[in-house]
Amino acid sequence: MNNNPKRSGIRIALDAMGGDFAPTETVKAAVQAAQHNDVHIKLVGDKQLLNNELSKYDVKALTIDVIPSEGRIEEGGQPVLALRQNPSASISIATRLVKEGDADVVVSMGSTGATMACATLMLGLFGGLGRPAIGGHFHGLAPKTVVMDMGSIVDARPDQLLSCAILGQVFSNQYLEIPNPRIAVLSIGSEEGKGNRLTKQSFKLFKSTPINFVGNVEGMDLFTNKADVIVCDGFVGNVLLKFTHGLGIALSKFLETRLDGLIAADKINNLTQEVIELHDATRRIGGPLFGVNHPVIIGHGSSNAQGISGVISTAIRVVDLKLIDSMKKAISQLNADEKTA
Amino acid sequence: MNNNPKRSGIRIALDAMGGDFAPTETVKAAVQAAQHNDVHIKLVGDKQLLNNELSKYDVKALTIDVIPSEGRIEEGGQPVLALRQNPSASISIATRLVKEGDADVVVSMGSTGATMACATLMLGLFGGLGRPAIGGHFHGLAPKTVVMDMGSIVDARPDQLLSCAILGQVFSNQYLEIPNPRIAVLSIGSEEGKGNRLTKQSFKLFKSTPINFVGNVEGMDLFTNKADVIVCDGFVGNVLLKFTHGLGIALSKFLETRLDGLIAADKINNLTQEVIELHDATRRIGGPLFGVNHPVIIGHGSSNAQGISGVISTAIRVVDLKLIDSMKKAISQLNADEKTA
Repeated sequence: MNNNPKRSGIRIALDAMGGDFAPTETVKAAVQAAQHNDVHIKLVGDKQLLNNELSKYDVKALTIDVIPSEGRIEEGGQPVLALRQNPSASISIATRLVKEGDADVVVSMGSTGATMACATLMLGLFGGLGRPAIGGHFHGLAPKTVVMDMGSIVDARPDQLLSCAILGQVFSNQYLEIPNPRIAVLSIGSEEGKGNRLTKQSFKLFKSTPINFVGNVEGMDLFTNKADVIVCDGFVGNVLLKFTHGLGIALSKFLETRLDGLIAADKINNLTQEVIELHDATRRIGGPLFGVNHPVIIGHGSSNAQGISGVISTAIRVVDLKLIDSMKKAISQLNADEKTA
Repeated sequence: MNNNPKRSGIRIALDAMGGDFAPTETVKAAVQAAQHNDVHIKLVGDKQLLNNELSKYDVKALTIDVIPSEGRIEEGGQPVLALRQNPSASISIATRLVKEGDADVVVSMGSTGATMACATLMLGLFGGLGRPAIGGHFHGLAPKTVVMDMGSIVDARPDQLLSCAILGQVFSNQYLEIPNPRIAVLSIGSEEGKGNRLTKQSFKLFKSTPINFVGNVEGMDLFTNKADVIVCDGFVGNVLLKFTHGLGIALSKFLETRLDGLIAADKINNLTQEVIELHDATRRIGGPLFGVNHPVIIGHGSSNAQGISGVISTAIRVVDLKLIDSMKKAISQLNADEKTA
């Protein structure tokens, strides 16, 4: 739930079949969102299941439609193949609503692969990434530090990292309200000559553009506020992301043991839960796919209604801010600068 | 200090000028080590400074020599250049002792770059790595899980990762006493096709050898005991290493705030100190440079005497186990297998 003031009729295509607790929690979240925001929710999924869920609530005053679809794409496997075999799956239909101008934003709790595939194939990309980038704040203890990419742009080229930098800069500036965000390349030494082939080439490229490039940062600098947007290859970002997730779980067990008997069990539980969530920041809050022509917001598969409401709030904010337009403009501006340079 | 039984006359070349607290703490550690082990310590450094430090202790019954050197190489900068300008620096002289058969192992608290350069240029490498690899257990919460490489072999080739795997396997088996260690490639998906160019090619190569290869693991698997030796490019390993270090510091501050008033201040302090150390595992314990023809053990620059004693214990154990011989044999065996395959 959120306490934002009423919004002006944003149309949300919610993949009501996506996520571990669909459709019960997706529908509950949709009802909450419609109660608290002036939004039009288009619930995409199995008609009967969704109507059953909706019958639990008083939805007369709310703008919630059911858009029928058939089946859902599970996490894992080959999403493009799965979508071909199942063209009326909920994520396809939800994405088509945005493609055809019947909704402003896609919201999905996964599968990530299928959502990214639909976004790429049906909505198209800008910025030359080849795939949508995954970005956002990385760790709960550094909530304003954005990392891009976290698992999509693997074996990246320097120009792709530059696009990630621009998209991250706009996100940092407009969504996180950081004035003139500082951009850095994640490397293994702060000097220009330190790093691997990709980071050395990227350093040179970044330096040649008008972006606010502050040079290389190292792993510890995700916590030192030396940069607002830290750019890395998707392989590195994804290893870090999953390592952090695993560490959060390991740490919560460690703290449970160490604090046992020292403070009350419920306090330990709250703390370990907070530690897990801090280490799972990106996946829990939900964020836009970067470089897609229309807004697509992905949340965590294990989200409950409260989590999904948060993802819907993110979607509303992304649309309200016209974030995608700003990102396209920033990429065009960079390309224009390069041509005149 | 350590409580090992007396050892049989291992000769240790200790760079007494290396590390943040040299020579006070290096000399103190040398005295402790000589008191508790049948070792011959060759303290390399400024003669007068070292003798001043030694005069604080009763060393009559101990086998501690002072080997004079001039100057020290500071952390950072260009180590090879610094060594050329300063050929009698402590790390050069210490390494020469091993090269000329006058000591069995080099022990240094840094600079890491200079120690690696001396090892490479004076002692030589095996296994085709081009540089010594950095490996060891990565996180205190997974003390038996070895990660290689952590910052040396950047832009690695698959054959270099294979060498890292073999070296790590011998270390895991003999030093950590893991029977038949499981080897994995760190990637961003467990299936063979997942990853970047390097991990995909490495998967194929590893599969074609007789090593105990268990496939890809992901970032969270540094804590899930799916593999004993996790191999990655040094760029990835170094980003992870430094990220983990930074996270440990950030977490200790977080816990300090959260536990303030709930438990006694000294208990908080112990816990946060433990958290920092858990996140700095590799650097604190000291470990061998992998792929160097003779044993070279590097410890953390910020080590005090107790930490340096631990690094000396590591050195004694590496020599006692004849770890380098086993590693060379394992690499030769693999090459022989490849030729007959």
